[in-house]
Amino acid sequence: MIIGLIGLGKMGGNMVTRLLKGGHEIVGFDLQEQNRAEAQKQGARPADSLEALVQQLAPPRNIWVMVPHGNPTTQTIAQLLKILQPDDLIIDGGNSNFQDSIRHAGDCHAKQVRFLDIGVSGGVWGLTIGYNLMVGGDQDSFARMEPVLRTLAPENGYAHVGGHGAGHFVKMLHNALEYAMLQSIGETFDCLKQSEFAINLQQVARLWANGSVVRCWLLELLAEAFQQEGNDLARIADYVEDSDTGRWTAHYAIDHAIPLPTITQSLYERFASRQDLRFSNQVIAALRNQFGGHVVQRLPEEQ
Amino acid sequence: MIIGLIGLGKMGGNMVTRLLKGGHEIVGFDLQEQNRAEAQKQGARPADSLEALVQQLAPPRNIWVMVPHGNPTTQTIAQLLKILQPDDLIIDGGNSNFQDSIRHAGDCHAKQVRFLDIGVSGGVWGLTIGYNLMVGGDQDSFARMEPVLRTLAPENGYAHVGGHGAGHFVKMLHNALEYAMLQSIGETFDCLKQSEFAINLQQVARLWANGSVVRCWLLELLAEAFQQEGNDLARIADYVEDSDTGRWTAHYAIDHAIPLPTITQSLYERFASRQDLRFSNQVIAALRNQFGGHVVQRLPEEQ
Repeated sequence: MIIGLIGLGKMGGNMVTRLLKGGHEIVGFDLQEQNRAEAQKQGARPADSLEALVQQLAPPRNIWVMVPHGNPTTQTIAQLLKILQPDDLIIDGGNSNFQDSIRHAGDCHAKQVRFLDIGVSGGVWGLTIGYNLMVGGDQDSFARMEPVLRTLAPENGYAHVGGHGAGHFVKMLHNALEYAMLQSIGETFDCLKQSEFAINLQQVARLWANGSVVRCWLLELLAEAFQQEGNDLARIADYVEDSDTGRWTAHYAIDHAIPLPTITQSLYERFASRQDLRFSNQVIAALRNQFGGHVVQRLPEEQ
Repeated sequence: MIIGLIGLGKMGGNMVTRLLKGGHEIVGFDLQEQNRAEAQKQGARPADSLEALVQQLAPPRNIWVMVPHGNPTTQTIAQLLKILQPDDLIIDGGNSNFQDSIRHAGDCHAKQVRFLDIGVSGGVWGLTIGYNLMVGGDQDSFARMEPVLRTLAPENGYAHVGGHGAGHFVKMLHNALEYAMLQSIGETFDCLKQSEFAINLQQVARLWANGSVVRCWLLELLAEAFQQEGNDLARIADYVEDSDTGRWTAHYAIDHAIPLPTITQSLYERFASRQDLRFSNQVIAALRNQFGGHVVQRLPEEQ
């Protein structure tokens, strides 16, 4: 089928490749001329504005939005709603907050425009392996997009998980699980590394990926990382960013009084990873010095 | 090759099946007559004592011990050492503490008997999929057992991870990772279940198993569990046992000052799952009542 694709960056660009290979046609828009040219080289028809993109598509249109979540997504949808017609369909494939998606669905509904929120997992590997797609919205719109979803996903890799917002909600929890699994793996290999055994971490990651109870794709990637970077990861800083999905999950858990101890701890460990100096530990050291005369390690005085 | 196998229970019995299918011969001993008879039916030669088992094997012997860790394993090895000869090989495939295994390796060494400690993962699925094998000990003994390891494991599913004790040490950390991954998955699906979306948990577990970043074997098993038990797991109590490996990991981390926050938390959550009444929460409620007059929920008086 013919799809309008807005956002031809790292994710959108790879999706162009996969969709064209699957026999679909694409009209693509990106703010950056370079991304448009790249998509055109692959066989997509470029559009140099949202209006041009909409004009190049016959109604009922299917327009996949793949831009950063928050304002870029909200503004793109608002602009589209000014020029789209009833029964056109907007798909938000970004990492939007599910509450934004519920709001966007309402905005679309008011103009009789259809809306799907699709959580997309797979990262840079989606191009070759396929993207895992978690779809929220009405059944009709889901069915209409199934030819595209089938092309983008691996076998059994897409599903209609619920109404508006459910796709991005399930993606949020997918990411939360990812936080906790990453932390679990991190701690495990830290302990292996610090042991008295000269464990070959790459070997163990690869071993566990084959037939053990904990086998998972992340262990396969870890074996690759150790192979590329060495077992001591000597050139990788112990600094970990977080995307918003981890924080949203923690907020959600707190608002709904759902205990998520290790997911939340995994998020906090990322915050801690970014502090050069942990004031909490300075406070503890200072207090131990006060009440017990325990020695504190002194920092050098600033020059 | 010909292997003596001690312990023909759930794990050992399945290993008999896999080894015979792989063309090996087995002389098997188990304290229970029924297990011996079952192994014989499959094609193993039964022995009704350790002595009989040793007599039925020509030196140099390879004897795989697959009995519960702790005293049963220690006593079996001690008894074997009374009747084995130099260059015979004892393999401990149980879930032994790696420190026990280092001790057992020393006991064997004193009698010029070889020793391998092998961590075995795969549970009831090992029979069909193969066992993941983490081997500790000397290179020669590992090489001598490779034909058997190749039969027991799936492709790339066994490795020599280090000297004596390393096999069971790596298995301990494998189990620690399993604790934390199980906890991660548990929290994630708790949040999905408690949400305002009517999420089909089985569908999401199955979806994520295909192409998502978090795909893992445990999610495949979870989809099976939801299919068999229903999405609310109505007949599964929220009570979780622990094996010793989780506690050993926590002890190890504390002895070596290695921070394992989410692994340890996962262990503590299991302890909490087994308390009908959490006294810590009673203490908190009582104190809030004392300092703030906050209402406490009263338990019924005992009759």
